[in-house]
Amino acid sequence: MNHSYDDTTSALRAAEHVDAARLLRSIDALATIGARGDGGVDRPALSTLEIDARRGLIERAQALGCTVSTDACANLFFRRAGEEDLPPVITGSHIDTQPTGGRLDGAYGVLAGFECLAALADAGVHTRRPLEVAIWTNEEGSRFQPGAMGSSTFVDPARLAGFRSVRDAAGVTFGATLDAHRTAFPSLATRAPGAAHAFIELHIEQGPLLELAGTPLGVVTGIQGVRWHSIRCTGAAAHAGTTPMRVRRDAMTLAVRVRGEIEAFALELGGDAARITFGSWHIEPNSINTIPSTVTLTVDFRHPDPAVLARFDAALAACIAHHGADVHLEPLFEHPPVHFADSAIARVRSACDALGARSQPIVSGAFHDALHLAKQCATAMIFVPSRGGISHNPLEATDDADLVLGTRALAHCLVELCNEAH
Amino acid sequence: MNHSYDDTTSALRAAEHVDAARLLRSIDALATIGARGDGGVDRPALSTLEIDARRGLIERAQALGCTVSTDACANLFFRRAGEEDLPPVITGSHIDTQPTGGRLDGAYGVLAGFECLAALADAGVHTRRPLEVAIWTNEEGSRFQPGAMGSSTFVDPARLAGFRSVRDAAGVTFGATLDAHRTAFPSLATRAPGAAHAFIELHIEQGPLLELAGTPLGVVTGIQGVRWHSIRCTGAAAHAGTTPMRVRRDAMTLAVRVRGEIEAFALELGGDAARITFGSWHIEPNSINTIPSTVTLTVDFRHPDPAVLARFDAALAACIAHHGADVHLEPLFEHPPVHFADSAIARVRSACDALGARSQPIVSGAFHDALHLAKQCATAMIFVPSRGGISHNPLEATDDADLVLGTRALAHCLVELCNEAH
Repeated sequence: MNHSYDDTTSALRAAEHVDAARLLRSIDALATIGARGDGGVDRPALSTLEIDARRGLIERAQALGCTVSTDACANLFFRRAGEEDLPPVITGSHIDTQPTGGRLDGAYGVLAGFECLAALADAGVHTRRPLEVAIWTNEEGSRFQPGAMGSSTFVDPARLAGFRSVRDAAGVTFGATLDAHRTAFPSLATRAPGAAHAFIELHIEQGPLLELAGTPLGVVTGIQGVRWHSIRCTGAAAHAGTTPMRVRRDAMTLAVRVRGEIEAFALELGGDAARITFGSWHIEPNSINTIPSTVTLTVDFRHPDPAVLARFDAALAACIAHHGADVHLEPLFEHPPVHFADSAIARVRSACDALGARSQPIVSGAFHDALHLAKQCATAMIFVPSRGGISHNPLEATDDADLVLGTRALAHCLVELCNEAH
Repeated sequence: MNHSYDDTTSALRAAEHVDAARLLRSIDALATIGARGDGGVDRPALSTLEIDARRGLIERAQALGCTVSTDACANLFFRRAGEEDLPPVITGSHIDTQPTGGRLDGAYGVLAGFECLAALADAGVHTRRPLEVAIWTNEEGSRFQPGAMGSSTFVDPARLAGFRSVRDAAGVTFGATLDAHRTAFPSLATRAPGAAHAFIELHIEQGPLLELAGTPLGVVTGIQGVRWHSIRCTGAAAHAGTTPMRVRRDAMTLAVRVRGEIEAFALELGGDAARITFGSWHIEPNSINTIPSTVTLTVDFRHPDPAVLARFDAALAACIAHHGADVHLEPLFEHPPVHFADSAIARVRSACDALGARSQPIVSGAFHDALHLAKQCATAMIFVPSRGGISHNPLEATDDADLVLGTRALAHCLVELCNEAH
């Protein structure tokens, strides 16, 4: 091969060949598969609906001259050949949804990847490295828990054995759905897990920050760390009419106090970047005329700074200890903050700049497949604004112009990464 | 008849003939019918278990020379004849229980009434008026809602038609169980609703006040008034990780604030006598990583003073109005305070004094059949202490000595009332 791989020219040419109408039509088309009456989408992971959607995308990729492969976790890879035998650059996301999901979460990243494949073809752009669009399996975690099974097993294949026995609400194992997927697509090649040069995931923000700032593109520098806990507050059930206030042990009174204390130190320690949520509550006996005996509430604390997370852990332990035996803490889950690769972040930022588009750094508050890919290769993300910050909701929406701009930035960035020698 | 009805002598003689061992044995015996493994009792209203218990008490009353009658709501009346044709004095309570009930709630009042029938017979005491022990149907309201169907229809028979179509959790109508009760006891006479001279109900306190004061007998002067409300607080569901604190509309944050405001003015208006409880909570979507969109909580406010209840109503309306459209109030139920008849209260107090027993006035925090009888005739109650204030619980207990003392006070009081000419 004797190309010079003129990044700037070919990357801009690819971005210019992004076809707005084709992109938006593809989003509309995918949203018909699992469409809800309210404009949302309900497309469970590896359901008949998702298999149908995958079949359509396989046919589209083959028509674009791509090869299609799958792996042991039913991830799909749509590969546009490169000119050298080097690890590919991967983009993509997922096409499973929440039960009351919208049409963009995940689907936008996959379809923008397809639009890039088409734009590169239209522009006649050839790249040094192969470009792959991935559909990662079961990102949402709505049908099978935990989420992100596909991307996490791509990075750590040993996890798959444990996932196969997980059952959905109807009792179907994840393993059985993987086998059915293989049967549905018998002719696909098998892709080994392993080397990837870089991963770029384009996604809606799912929060209000870009809209509030009036910025169309977010250069995602990482993903917040998270702590999930369950707190059980114990009181004593007693008759609402006969029990004087001074002798009550009301578990809800205790829970409200504990909630207030945790919220106060979470905000003090974490400042503007802190996210503290008490989302799930279970009250016993939950009767109008009985004083609550037990209240169990959940804590979701997120912050991008590992030092803040550590200080939160210490403050929480002290708070629980202070309340003695009546308050019990059970840690449920934690994940450290992820900082994306500076090289990949720089590629995203320069793509925005090259298009003359305003962008700003942003930390992702939600998890994404990129959380796992970041352990494997240089990874970053691009965000576009979510109207009203709404997500996981049929009302989820992004302005068409932002959807197109995000795809142009993705195309630019992918071509630059695909032409990296090292 | 030419008795002089020497109240003081015959009332004391009746009290002295209360047989502690017989009383306690009868409580133990009834507690075997519907016994739970944990020492409690589960005896649903008009269940096979309760029918069995009624059969045993009918046989016992007939052996004591009493006549037994029933009415259209399956209330049972065990009547010891008086010497004049005057309206009877009634005592008694109920023998249905909560699903996780104790052995004393209701049953104690009925069995103490039976002990009085036996004590009067043993003492050879004759009374001017008849004495009736009543078993009121479905007081707890656990199987069929609302509670106190028997005593409320005795006072207001027109209510029965509406009650007959109420169904239990298995779909059985209250009317069908009334018919089955009539079939089970075909030979019983039918008692008309109507005239009663007085009603005295002996009951466990179900609260801690007598125990805290070290007083064995409570002279119940009335029953608190109550307000039940449901309050719906509306926010907006959003992602726990992506939504900054400053743009959140967390329905639980709002609900906690509203709860605090209501509690504050309830205690300020009501002082030591106020009882304010937020017992039932429903949180949506109740997910660990989603900000609550809707929280519905219940308010149970009780106070013996109608003026305080009225001021609470006004303060609550102002509080809800202040929060605007995000907070919605739905009244569920209310009942004014009941003040028992001074004449009946005086009879209870003088019975305690005649026995040399310490007593104190007390307002009932719970509802009882006496709430309804008070509309019909001179009504009062006697309370004995509840250990730890515990009730509606298998751990419900009262010291044997207090159970016996309460029964002696009841016997004294009943004889005095039975000998009243007017």
